[in-house]
Amino acid sequence: MSKNIPYKIYLEESELPKQWYNVRADMKKKPEPLLNPATHKPMTLDELSGVFCRELAEQELNETDPYIDIPEEIIDFYKMYRPSPLVRAYYLEKALDTPAKIYYKFEGNNTSGSHKLNSAIAQAYYAKKQGLKGVTTETGAGQWGTALSMACSYFDLDCKVYMVKCSYEQKPFRREVMRTYGASVTPSPSNTTEVGRKILAEHPGTTGSLGCAISEAVEVAVGTEGYRYVLGSVLAQVLLHQSIIGLESMTACDKYDIKPDIIIGCAGGGSNLGGLISPFMGRKLKGEADYKFIAVEPASCPSLTRGVYGYDFCDTGKVCPIQKMYTLGSGFIPSANHAGGLRYHGMSAVVSELYDQGLIEARSVEQTEVFEAATKFARIEGTLPAPESSHAIKVAIDEALKCKETGEEKTILFGLTGTGYFDMYAYQKFNDGTMTDYIPTDEEIKASVDTLPKI
Amino acid sequence: MSKNIPYKIYLEESELPKQWYNVRADMKKKPEPLLNPATHKPMTLDELSGVFCRELAEQELNETDPYIDIPEEIIDFYKMYRPSPLVRAYYLEKALDTPAKIYYKFEGNNTSGSHKLNSAIAQAYYAKKQGLKGVTTETGAGQWGTALSMACSYFDLDCKVYMVKCSYEQKPFRREVMRTYGASVTPSPSNTTEVGRKILAEHPGTTGSLGCAISEAVEVAVGTEGYRYVLGSVLAQVLLHQSIIGLESMTACDKYDIKPDIIIGCAGGGSNLGGLISPFMGRKLKGEADYKFIAVEPASCPSLTRGVYGYDFCDTGKVCPIQKMYTLGSGFIPSANHAGGLRYHGMSAVVSELYDQGLIEARSVEQTEVFEAATKFARIEGTLPAPESSHAIKVAIDEALKCKETGEEKTILFGLTGTGYFDMYAYQKFNDGTMTDYIPTDEEIKASVDTLPKI
Repeated sequence: MSKNIPYKIYLEESELPKQWYNVRADMKKKPEPLLNPATHKPMTLDELSGVFCRELAEQELNETDPYIDIPEEIIDFYKMYRPSPLVRAYYLEKALDTPAKIYYKFEGNNTSGSHKLNSAIAQAYYAKKQGLKGVTTETGAGQWGTALSMACSYFDLDCKVYMVKCSYEQKPFRREVMRTYGASVTPSPSNTTEVGRKILAEHPGTTGSLGCAISEAVEVAVGTEGYRYVLGSVLAQVLLHQSIIGLESMTACDKYDIKPDIIIGCAGGGSNLGGLISPFMGRKLKGEADYKFIAVEPASCPSLTRGVYGYDFCDTGKVCPIQKMYTLGSGFIPSANHAGGLRYHGMSAVVSELYDQGLIEARSVEQTEVFEAATKFARIEGTLPAPESSHAIKVAIDEALKCKETGEEKTILFGLTGTGYFDMYAYQKFNDGTMTDYIPTDEEIKASVDTLPKI
Repeated sequence: MSKNIPYKIYLEESELPKQWYNVRADMKKKPEPLLNPATHKPMTLDELSGVFCRELAEQELNETDPYIDIPEEIIDFYKMYRPSPLVRAYYLEKALDTPAKIYYKFEGNNTSGSHKLNSAIAQAYYAKKQGLKGVTTETGAGQWGTALSMACSYFDLDCKVYMVKCSYEQKPFRREVMRTYGASVTPSPSNTTEVGRKILAEHPGTTGSLGCAISEAVEVAVGTEGYRYVLGSVLAQVLLHQSIIGLESMTACDKYDIKPDIIIGCAGGGSNLGGLISPFMGRKLKGEADYKFIAVEPASCPSLTRGVYGYDFCDTGKVCPIQKMYTLGSGFIPSANHAGGLRYHGMSAVVSELYDQGLIEARSVEQTEVFEAATKFARIEGTLPAPESSHAIKVAIDEALKCKETGEEKTILFGLTGTGYFDMYAYQKFNDGTMTDYIPTDEEIKASVDTLPKI
């Protein structure tokens, strides 16, 4: 059979999913509801609609419908870069001399360079449909900001991006891609907001943080007529949109009679992992199939493997709704790991609940071994991976080498979320041999989780 | 019919061409032979084999075989990123409100970011087969150097890249991609060669030139046991390898009953243009079909539109064979146009001869209008193009707008040779409004072409 499997499986355009899959509908025990940060009561649809577009707020609260139609306008945009290829890693298998079969779903073949576009276009669509003028957001690594810029350009929406200042300075080319798509990009903290001015006065010369950028973006959205704030991960709506990754993967697997044993994704806020595994998890929850799911996180920011499961703030400024999740505490400052997309203190509530139920395993890996895997992968498979994606590559290689020891012919599927073209500063550190690892101490983590709100 | 054409046409892996197409075999009047720079006599196979691998030298001289088998090992590598998609530019057509049908062959979906990989892997393969230890080359914009690094990594060959110093400094991330693939990258001029030391002594503080980088790479290749020098464009062998672009395009067109009226490619040394048009030109030469071919070059380096057709040196150092081509003179220094891949004083002998026979048209376009087209394309079609490729986009849009005026439903096919992720410095200039145009004067061109050797 496997001889008939091409290196790249491209589904037909007609096989593009018409509906997203909402895994919460099939979970017996659902994630806990989002709470109002002031009252600690569950957020109502009306309350959420002040933050998000109405239809996105509805999706956020929808725990019952397993399938939600993808609007035609979004499908039209998806056709620009989807279906994305499911790649058989023949070259990697051969190089590892493993009996395992390795597949990866590659989401990097679009100009934003990652899977983030799948949700960006959906959020921009609903914003446009609601008659908004624009949206605001923050970006750290820059993948989300780039994706949102492209999506807003497509729907002719204004896009204001607050980019963490150190990232703004270290990644000038990321910034230029966003500007090319018409977004305004402001280094954060900035003089354009009250919170920014306050931080600049208190910490002159600061290079910013994600928490500060979020606060600025939220302030501008709330204070500007016709704007909303949008997020690229963590939320249930984002996982819903990202389920297209898993749905396409499943269709391709079914079409070619591929039965994954192990499904691996990197996990920061959970957008890619949740999207990739959702449809497979649905089958597992319904007893139709079984899979081993592995979430891979950086050892420097180990929310699943070393955090606690409790209610916490989603942002440092404590203005967003509170959710129950695996968290290191909203004040946790991860060390300067180059996988900026994985440097989030918490984890999607959906992924957290599935993990708490023992349906997902988690592993943490160190930065240097991740870049070793990334470089090996680039040379063998020809694609230069993003640092975030390379966390999944590292564990996929580990699992394939285990198969080599045991002789098991397992089928491994992992998510290759994006490309590393804008992360060459990190590769340079690795090439120069100056990259370091950092693992937080138990005391550091304890001090941080001790700050969780008492709910 | 057109309703059944998907946004992206992906051929099956089994439809990947098994042979390259050698357009010279079907040309009644062939390009003039390469001449020995010392004797001005046609280069023999033995002479060429001192410069190139034996099989590549044979390909260079082969004017009779229309098809040449692609070795299995190269096909295996091609499967990593080929067949490349033929994209129907539905979104662009709609935005331009044109009755024209626009297609583009996209060669940017590989880590080198361009079509250069098609020939790099072939040249690396023949070098490996001949038992060489490694190859040397120069790179300006960096696409060729990146492609060659990937190809050499795959075949475990050493790869020494001399990168023009200003490019080395302005594009540190291009450099890091090459290093990630194991290449050594040396800023040129350097202290590692005699010619480099000489130039540094004469011009301390120089930021280098392509001509100087070529001279250094050639010196190292000639002086090191087991090495050869390789080139990414201009040569007939390169056009042969690049014919895979046109062959796939033609297969996809035939499969979907698409009949291009106009075929457009950017032209620097001619590798992409020649590769894209070759099979279609073959049909035209045999009277089986007719097409209008347009070569697009920068107004700052207009070898076809303002150069002369004569024998000239291929390199500034005058060590390589002499060929008859459209040229601005080997001493021509083009202004600092951001499309580094198009800043070559001459043009492929094959393309030159076809142009001289009136089988190809040529147009020159200015830098700023090219970036306007590039930005429009990025926003509408979702792919951020390389500056080089954007020359073809500009003319494709022009032609589509002519159709809008006349109401003609012409079918336009152009080559989108690569992505612009490593060209954001140029986009930044455009975004900032500080990009300028430069057109050489007649006097400048005359002074340069007056230096052609008298043959």
